[in-house]
Amino acid sequence: MAQRPLDILNESLNGPVIVKLKDGRTFRGELQGYDIHMNLVLDETEEIENGEAARKLGTVVVRGDNVVYISP
Amino acid sequence: MAQRPLDILNESLNGPVIVKLKDGRTFRGELQGYDIHMNLVLDETEEIENGEAARKLGTVVVRGDNVVYISP
Amino acid sequence: MAQRPLDILNESLNGPVIVKLKDGRTFRGELQGYDIHMNLVLDETEEIENGEAARKLGTVVVRGDNVVYISP
Amino acid sequence: MAQRPLDILNESLNGPVIVKLKDGRTFRGELQGYDIHMNLVLDETEEIENGEAARKLGTVVVRGDNVVYISP
Amino acid sequence: MAQRPLDILNESLNGPVIVKLKDGRTFRGELQGYDIHMNLVLDETEEIENGEAARKLGTVVVRGDNVVYISP
Amino acid sequence: MAQRPLDILNESLNGPVIVKLKDGRTFRGELQGYDIHMNLVLDETEEIENGEAARKLGTVVVRGDNVVYISP
Amino acid sequence: MAQRPLDILNESLNGPVIVKLKDGRTFRGELQGYDIHMNLVLDETEEIENGEAARKLGTVVVRGDNVVYISP
Repeated sequence: MAQRPLDILNESLNGPVIVKLKDGRTFRGELQGYDIHMNLVLDETEEIENGEAARKLGTVVVRGDNVVYISP
Repeated sequence: MAQRPLDILNESLNGPVIVKLKDGRTFRGELQGYDIHMNLVLDETEEIENGEAARKLGTVVVRGDNVVYISP
Repeated sequence: MAQRPLDILNESLNGPVIVKLKDGRTFRGELQGYDIHMNLVLDETEEIENGEAARKLGTVVVRGDNVVYISP
Repeated sequence: MAQRPLDILNESLNGPVIVKLKDGRTFRGELQGYDIHMNLVLDETEEIENGEAARKLGTVVVRGDNVVYISP
Repeated sequence: MAQRPLDILNESLNGPVIVKLKDGRTFRGELQGYDIHMNLVLDETEEIENGEAARKLGTVVVRGDNVVYISP
Repeated sequence: MAQRPLDILNESLNGPVIVKLKDGRTFRGELQGYDIHMNLVLDETEEIENGEAARKLGTVVVRGDNVVYISP
Repeated sequence: MAQRPLDILNESLNGPVIVKLKDGRTFRGELQGYDIHMNLVLDETEEIENGEAARKLGTVVVRGDNVVYISP
């Protein structure tokens, strides 16, 4: 069954996601929202470095054009 | 409960936010306004370097395409 | 017979694809979905390095503006 | 009271502004006009280097996509 | 006689083309399709390095924003 | 009196302008035309290096997205 | 008399043009067509290096977003 990209984001709401950004940052958080630009709201966000939580960022609004991929 | 990215910005109005820019700058200020491009108005803005306020910028209008993320 | 780019993606649904990204990453996975921006949904995604699967990423939503090419 | 980014530019007309550009340039001038892309008209513009006016540019039309931020 | 860019692509369908990408890659293949963004479908694609076919890629969908030029 | 950026370009028609490009080039020429993207037509264009005319380019059509600023 | 950028391209049809690209390439060819994105069709195109024709490319379709300027 085919699923559109935004469908996957919708199914992932309130669950954990990994977000890779173009500048190399990796965020792990709970997906609280998104829009058609892939702007994202993450809750309890942690910035991951070398596979470990390096700092806690709480709630963040990520501008979609920074996103490489999102993995639920 | 899901929340769209601009909803979070709306809830954050008149409160403090951290803004990370693509060029590496970090701003801390009071969110006075935004629009659908994530253009932002910050008041009492400080530029943060190494976790400390390095200079005071007062009111700034940030062009949205520079934003990586906004954290209320 | 000419075929539009999105037709090829449509025919490739549920089958394996290689995706080359602008940052040099290579993904191999099963194409589960796409949209007109070439945002992609890949299942059972592996990141390929030097021709070998370097890590398993599961399901990923790739933002289309990162894509160089997709090969079914 | 929330204010949209373009409102701030409107209030700043005919007054001094600092404009930071993506290429590192800093302009100081009198804001004579703007549009929705943040294209700007500056009068009596000076290019600032190391905090000092390094050269006088007179009137300049800045293409908005170069702007990082504008500070009235 | 003037010809619009997409007319040339249309005339080139099912024939060989060279495609230069912004990242330096050169593809040679048979043009199977295109759209208004210059997204391309190439068949029997070869990646060219130093003027020689370095690897066979089969069918590829190239996202148009990577294209520098296309030569039939 | 506020003036929109394109008003300034309109007033500058047939007169000399300096155009700074994102790649560091500086052009000096007579502004013969423009459009809403800031695509420009310059006549008797000279490329300026170290403040001197380094080469004559005659008429040039500059694609607007290369422009940093235009100074009449 | 003011002339819009696309007017100049229209007048230049079937004549020789120099095209400078963002990646540093210089093309010389006969302008066979263009569109509103400044996508171009060049015939009998030569790539110029150090002021000399370094290679013949025949017909090329240049994607407009690569263009710095076009000189008839």
